[in-house]
Amino acid sequence: MRAEILCVGTELLLGDIVNTNAAYIAKELAAIGVDVYYQTVVGDNNERLEESLNLAFSRADIVIMTGGLGPTYDDLTKETVAKYFNVPMEVDQASLDSIRGFFKKIGAEMTKNNEKQALMPKGATVFHNNWGTAPGLALTDGKLTAILLPGPPGEMKPMFAAYVIDYLSKMSNKVLVSKNIRLFGIGESKIEDMLHDYMKSSSNPTIAPYAKIGEAMLRVTASGKDKEECEKLIAPVIKKINEILGDYIYGIDIPNLQYAVVEELKEKGLKVATAESCTGGMLSEFITSMPGSSTVFDCGVCSYANNVKSKLLGVRDSTLEKYGAVSEQTAAEMAAGIRAISGADIGVSTTGIAGPDGGTPEKPVGTVYIGIDSENDRRVIKLNLSGRRSDNERYMVRYRSAQNALFAVLETIRKHY
Amino acid sequence: MRAEILCVGTELLLGDIVNTNAAYIAKELAAIGVDVYYQTVVGDNNERLEESLNLAFSRADIVIMTGGLGPTYDDLTKETVAKYFNVPMEVDQASLDSIRGFFKKIGAEMTKNNEKQALMPKGATVFHNNWGTAPGLALTDGKLTAILLPGPPGEMKPMFAAYVIDYLSKMSNKVLVSKNIRLFGIGESKIEDMLHDYMKSSSNPTIAPYAKIGEAMLRVTASGKDKEECEKLIAPVIKKINEILGDYIYGIDIPNLQYAVVEELKEKGLKVATAESCTGGMLSEFITSMPGSSTVFDCGVCSYANNVKSKLLGVRDSTLEKYGAVSEQTAAEMAAGIRAISGADIGVSTTGIAGPDGGTPEKPVGTVYIGIDSENDRRVIKLNLSGRRSDNERYMVRYRSAQNALFAVLETIRKHY
Repeated sequence: MRAEILCVGTELLLGDIVNTNAAYIAKELAAIGVDVYYQTVVGDNNERLEESLNLAFSRADIVIMTGGLGPTYDDLTKETVAKYFNVPMEVDQASLDSIRGFFKKIGAEMTKNNEKQALMPKGATVFHNNWGTAPGLALTDGKLTAILLPGPPGEMKPMFAAYVIDYLSKMSNKVLVSKNIRLFGIGESKIEDMLHDYMKSSSNPTIAPYAKIGEAMLRVTASGKDKEECEKLIAPVIKKINEILGDYIYGIDIPNLQYAVVEELKEKGLKVATAESCTGGMLSEFITSMPGSSTVFDCGVCSYANNVKSKLLGVRDSTLEKYGAVSEQTAAEMAAGIRAISGADIGVSTTGIAGPDGGTPEKPVGTVYIGIDSENDRRVIKLNLSGRRSDNERYMVRYRSAQNALFAVLETIRKHY
Repeated sequence: MRAEILCVGTELLLGDIVNTNAAYIAKELAAIGVDVYYQTVVGDNNERLEESLNLAFSRADIVIMTGGLGPTYDDLTKETVAKYFNVPMEVDQASLDSIRGFFKKIGAEMTKNNEKQALMPKGATVFHNNWGTAPGLALTDGKLTAILLPGPPGEMKPMFAAYVIDYLSKMSNKVLVSKNIRLFGIGESKIEDMLHDYMKSSSNPTIAPYAKIGEAMLRVTASGKDKEECEKLIAPVIKKINEILGDYIYGIDIPNLQYAVVEELKEKGLKVATAESCTGGMLSEFITSMPGSSTVFDCGVCSYANNVKSKLLGVRDSTLEKYGAVSEQTAAEMAAGIRAISGADIGVSTTGIAGPDGGTPEKPVGTVYIGIDSENDRRVIKLNLSGRRSDNERYMVRYRSAQNALFAVLETIRKHY
């Protein structure tokens, strides 16, 4: 089974948005054993869209298209596919009702052009869109299959997961199972170095390292006749990797550090509180992004100014004067302060220089202190996150500070509770 | 002048990395008036790469390729291009010296296969790589031109800026200038509805709406012989759009709402403070993501638990009991409270139900209150952000709450200061 990905949208063609859809779909297809040899991006143009579709179907059995399903006159994908399969367009009543319902629910007026979104090629399997208005669809003549999904990733991804995987799995006969091992505090190349021989010697499952911002991931993928066979192949590999890299592993098949932290806190019945300077709320935002985090998190203070550090968190003026706001001592007092006022089991703080300004020779941009305060564990970690002067250095320093703070909390829970 | 973008790499095809190169190149080409109708991704495969190159040159004068310039046997881009132009490969001594120098500099051993990177199609213009090892190149027969750049974005982007813009500008005679008008509180389809006739009647400049999460953008693009001519064409269009959509416009050619807010605060010499419940720190994170925000922002409190709302922000227990944490009254008291303890000019609060749990028939998921407290403006905005049941509904509710809070602050500054 061979597929192509055809993304439609002038905003992609002009580079106004990055094509994250293609990467997402490619990865999902690889995981279920569907080969992809080409990805194409084409604008909202009738003729070129038609040419691209013809070309794609000359090379593949399945063409997965994103974009061009919206309400405006330059949204042409459905019409082009209907023409290719030589079927007429007709109103799908369920889609029309659903779009009307959506506008009613959000209390907005439904403009006339939105009705276009309920027009479907005759014979299509309609994928309802619970994440927006434009429905998706699959259309097949038994040999060739087109799958159409809306362009916004926030709609495309959940629809792919909800409908397309299922639709395609019925057409495939191979099963792939992957486990994603997530690591913190070690880079992709060091992982490859430590695992090199083992990775080389293993062909099923395969072991592949991936770099993520500030962290790394190892994907172990087995191929077999069913899920059970795959999982049997994977188990000893995970065990071996745990022996070699255990200290860096923070979870398997979990989305991120904040998930690990919130789950560990829940499990142990603990609460954390945050006192943030350089991360400006990012740390509390990460924690509270997790559903149910309100059971483990009551309170965060973003103390950007010195007087807030002293007034709200109780950092001593003498500490701020003597050591400065970006210092081990201030980080420690911030963590102790937020723990005291919140009554949480663990207080965690960040203070540092995110840049682009504010660096000094002694404390350059990227100098960050993470404070931990708890009954059994009291420490300050100094980070040096500088080195990449770029447009988003500020973001990188803040992001990696928040990640390090989360990992520090995780270590505290795992070692001391 | 018409170009195509052809990105080579199995890691792109499998979705292991997102194709940020294509977006970058597309944007740069649009800015210098080079049309792009297609972007293609193909793997490290001889035959398919050759086919893709043939196809691209059947449709365009310039093909810009990324990837496949490395030292390994499956790096095939140069060889494929040399074959297309029917020229032999030869060693470029300057490149060889430069690669040797690079390895010496980083103190690593240069393996034999790295010499392959100094092989160039005869007659190519070589682009030295100061950011890595693989040089880029341009090869032309006077009619068709291939431009080859390395795949890692950290090498490709600076090389594009350093060499390719210059190389292409000499071939082009058209200039494009765009203005991006950013709008909040109005959707793409409503914009199109309101501007439809005007958009249709305008061909230079063109007017195109784009949907962004929770907001919208209008791009006005003029084509002319120079920048001045383009800007003359754009000015009356911006004026007209301002007449029709002025209430929704928060800025032109600025990156986002937080930028607008921080700049307005700086300009007026005002400070804002945040009291967040449902947004969990996202609002303060947005504000502090802006360099220099420390001059307009001292303090934020993330009061996730009720007792923090009362203890730190001074929300009355009777208010919490009578109206609940998610209420107009609590939002108002949170905003007043944070303003009082911080001494800021404007206090802004968020309280709501982000989901997935916690919704009730009276206050479903997505019910959010934004409070504003300042000397001249005191109000609470009720939002209904439900209707998008998805994996990331929680994120969407939080994100759009933070955006609405920022827009409310902007309105307060613009109308009352």
